[in-house]
Amino acid sequence: MQLNIDYEHMSAEKRLLELGIKLPEPPAPGGNYQSAKIAGNLLFLAGAISMESGAVITGTAGADRSIPEGYAAARVCTLTHLAVLKRTLGSLDKVQQIVSVNGYVNAVPGFPDPPAIINGASDLLVAIFGDAGRHARAAIGVSSLPRNALVEVQMIVEIEIRD
Amino acid sequence: MQLNIDYEHMSAEKRLLELGIKLPEPPAPGGNYQSAKIAGNLLFLAGAISMESGAVITGTAGADRSIPEGYAAARVCTLTHLAVLKRTLGSLDKVQQIVSVNGYVNAVPGFPDPPAIINGASDLLVAIFGDAGRHARAAIGVSSLPRNALVEVQMIVEIEIRD
Amino acid sequence: MQLNIDYEHMSAEKRLLELGIKLPEPPAPGGNYQSAKIAGNLLFLAGAISMESGAVITGTAGADRSIPEGYAAARVCTLTHLAVLKRTLGSLDKVQQIVSVNGYVNAVPGFPDPPAIINGASDLLVAIFGDAGRHARAAIGVSSLPRNALVEVQMIVEIEIRD
Repeated sequence: MQLNIDYEHMSAEKRLLELGIKLPEPPAPGGNYQSAKIAGNLLFLAGAISMESGAVITGTAGADRSIPEGYAAARVCTLTHLAVLKRTLGSLDKVQQIVSVNGYVNAVPGFPDPPAIINGASDLLVAIFGDAGRHARAAIGVSSLPRNALVEVQMIVEIEIRD
Repeated sequence: MQLNIDYEHMSAEKRLLELGIKLPEPPAPGGNYQSAKIAGNLLFLAGAISMESGAVITGTAGADRSIPEGYAAARVCTLTHLAVLKRTLGSLDKVQQIVSVNGYVNAVPGFPDPPAIINGASDLLVAIFGDAGRHARAAIGVSSLPRNALVEVQMIVEIEIRD
Repeated sequence: MQLNIDYEHMSAEKRLLELGIKLPEPPAPGGNYQSAKIAGNLLFLAGAISMESGAVITGTAGADRSIPEGYAAARVCTLTHLAVLKRTLGSLDKVQQIVSVNGYVNAVPGFPDPPAIINGASDLLVAIFGDAGRHARAAIGVSSLPRNALVEVQMIVEIEIRD
């Protein structure tokens, strides 16, 4: 009967429940910075590295890691962002839209598929926020990431103005 | 007689004509994202890889690609952005100013000249928009780009507020 | 007697004096762009590479450069930004808050410590601006930077609205 669910007009919080997604604990920043900073109605999220149950998902795309593994790693980066958004805003329903995503993939030189990996972030954002989750994006292969993470994702989000 | 042309007060659309530049077809995004996203009066453009006539300009600066080839590749990334801007806004004259450019160059380790390559983007923007085309910029050498592209350029643009 | 100084409520300009920090000459951009561009109340700073007394601090983290050397390099990038901010705004006290920092480290593949290096930027920002200096951040290892610089730092800053 789930075929009749009106996903597009469902709130982000309801979709999270409907999809059975449990958010992780938002991590403590690994330095003298913040996980989120608000300027006007833009919220800038710090780069989140791929972590699951407190362990870093490490490795290098094109060497010891496949595209599906990278896709899953980009997805968990995004779960971290959702957890930080929820802690910062109180509810994911305070998100107006996802503005931009920069995805960095720890990759061997010449690895041609950063987009297929960063889709793990994009697909989750659209699943949760619908059309408001569609974003501008850049996907880049880089030579190293913090703690040897496989993926790091950085985001800018538009939020309701807070008076 | 062209020496008397008042480029600085010419509209971006007129300069495009004057310079004989034909914009390409804006490409379809290669994933679950958008080529452009607007938040308030800022427009965020997705990273555009170097493409010409539908073919990716591939290669690695410092290996099989020279600085002039990289410069030309950064220029065509920017043509893609102009095409996306025109499709999104209706006219390039709706652009208030170019705010920032991040240019990523597929480069061998230690390649010292990303700026000389990303000038291909900056020079075109200033040619089209005049002083409003001057922007903050970062030029970075990276280990891999989507589809083995030689250059990827990402931009933030200020636009007229849309009511 | 310095223990009684109320750093948190001291202006950024006073802290700079108190800490004995002398700002460098802001550099000329190495291309057709600007060191700073303002859009509304956001100020976008161009990527600043590690330079001291006019000489580039070069090298590669994980090869010929240590983490403390990288930390010092990230700090001088930030001094350049402070100099640009002061030239652009007239006073550092016009800064409302530091919004985001992207730090790029010229690093060998698999270098796991970009954050420890970019802390050189973050720590200085918090020392100068207090809580307003805390920012969202991404720290990335890349394969090459302009002029073989060891570090490049890019920033977005919120400023007082200028009427």
